[in-house]
Amino acid sequence: MDITIIGLGLIGGSLALDLRANGFANRLIGVDNNPQHADIALHEGLVDEVWSLEEACQMTDILVLAVPVNAIIQLLPTVLSLISSDTIVIDMGSTKAEIASLISTHAKREQVVMAHPMAGTEFSGPEAAISNLFQRKAAIICDRHLSSQHAIMVAEKLFKSLFMRIIYMDSSAHDIHAAYVSHISHISSYVLALTVLDKEKSEANIFNLASGGFASTVRLAKSSPRMWNDIYEQNSNNILDVLDIYIEKIQEFRNYIAEGKFDKTYQLMEEANKIGQILNTPQFNGVRG
Amino acid sequence: MDITIIGLGLIGGSLALDLRANGFANRLIGVDNNPQHADIALHEGLVDEVWSLEEACQMTDILVLAVPVNAIIQLLPTVLSLISSDTIVIDMGSTKAEIASLISTHAKREQVVMAHPMAGTEFSGPEAAISNLFQRKAAIICDRHLSSQHAIMVAEKLFKSLFMRIIYMDSSAHDIHAAYVSHISHISSYVLALTVLDKEKSEANIFNLASGGFASTVRLAKSSPRMWNDIYEQNSNNILDVLDIYIEKIQEFRNYIAEGKFDKTYQLMEEANKIGQILNTPQFNGVRG
Repeated sequence: MDITIIGLGLIGGSLALDLRANGFANRLIGVDNNPQHADIALHEGLVDEVWSLEEACQMTDILVLAVPVNAIIQLLPTVLSLISSDTIVIDMGSTKAEIASLISTHAKREQVVMAHPMAGTEFSGPEAAISNLFQRKAAIICDRHLSSQHAIMVAEKLFKSLFMRIIYMDSSAHDIHAAYVSHISHISSYVLALTVLDKEKSEANIFNLASGGFASTVRLAKSSPRMWNDIYEQNSNNILDVLDIYIEKIQEFRNYIAEGKFDKTYQLMEEANKIGQILNTPQFNGVRG
Repeated sequence: MDITIIGLGLIGGSLALDLRANGFANRLIGVDNNPQHADIALHEGLVDEVWSLEEACQMTDILVLAVPVNAIIQLLPTVLSLISSDTIVIDMGSTKAEIASLISTHAKREQVVMAHPMAGTEFSGPEAAISNLFQRKAAIICDRHLSSQHAIMVAEKLFKSLFMRIIYMDSSAHDIHAAYVSHISHISSYVLALTVLDKEKSEANIFNLASGGFASTVRLAKSSPRMWNDIYEQNSNNILDVLDIYIEKIQEFRNYIAEGKFDKTYQLMEEANKIGQILNTPQFNGVRG
């Protein structure tokens, strides 16, 4: 199968590596508006060829959109106007509601599969591409009933070839849940980094006192501002809802410390401990779909 | 050398494993007020013998206090009253100012080395003990000039045998820096877990949408409430200072999203990105001391 990946960054590049290694792709075509990224992807063998968007849309079996959400929204109408009726488009955007609304009445809606692979690292660009990034992670497929059965089947095959678990979700539900579980982690990590950088003027002290705990909590603060800005813009209502609860809870925690109510902080921490059990839940640990 | 470890949890147990493996300890004696923990430590071979506090204090070369800070404050006067003039006490407490003030005028002050190994995991108890926990991490020694040269030399030897970098710091400076770099990470992680648990009623959704990013940011939320409560109590002024800045910054971030000022969120994220360079600074990466 000919697979075209638009956006040769962390997600697109890692996808290319795996789809070549597992034999799913016969030929990998890359599209990137950053010529440097395209050169690196070609040089590193992530893709076989680099084409223009127009060429790629007209001559491929599967077209994967792996660019920040705003770029997907900008590109998708052009892509749909160019593809033949046999091409399947898989969008890998981090938010879904606006994409869903953008294409809801499009004649080629059935050819699009709206997906979100819950995988990534804090790094970006084609140099960040790694093998097995997607293994055992969830691939969320949104609004499955609006894609053709054939398109869903092909997308499922692709995700299963990466050993992903496939989960189905409504696109607006996806955006709400993603705000809770993914988007808020990034904001709290960015803010943690800003607080430490603001208060702690000595880089040596940050380095010396940073245990593994700090390093892991602040890891996401290295993430791409470009990509995350698009997510805040696309999902601002849900993110603001969750942020307000987060701020309320941290205020509560702060006040208990200020008032010396350590029985209350104890209760809150015991409650928070439950997250460990959920993340390790064995019944969810199998690959399914 | 005979080494007694008071508190056979993550820190005490991991220390026992390494000091036996590297030959620093000839005999390891454990003290724990939790008989179950003492049994596990003995059964797992972390320590050779389990003694009472009184026996241990009277018959050991080095006595390591590896219990939560409030327990150290409670135990230290008893320990000092029982030890001979040849015993060295190393306290491994997470906060230092109150311990410093507690023993400042004690006749045996010089026999105490106030230290804080910047190492740990989110787990606790003797089952959590692991080898090489301390390797390449910083051992902070506080108020070095208040300990005897001999005591400092022995403590340094012990930490170097674990391949730790030794850093010297004033005890009150330690508590301020620890609030910025360590304590605030834990609170933001606990609050993140509480927010998600509060808003996201479906455990399956949390599990399915949790990428590696969420898992690493929320990891510290599994930490021991007992240990962290002591830290909040001991270091409340510094923690409140940092928390207030954190809350101010997350409010600022929230307002920029609400107002659609994505140029501002971009700037904040670019600033936050700098934490990556600091944590990877090569000049700090060697083992020194």
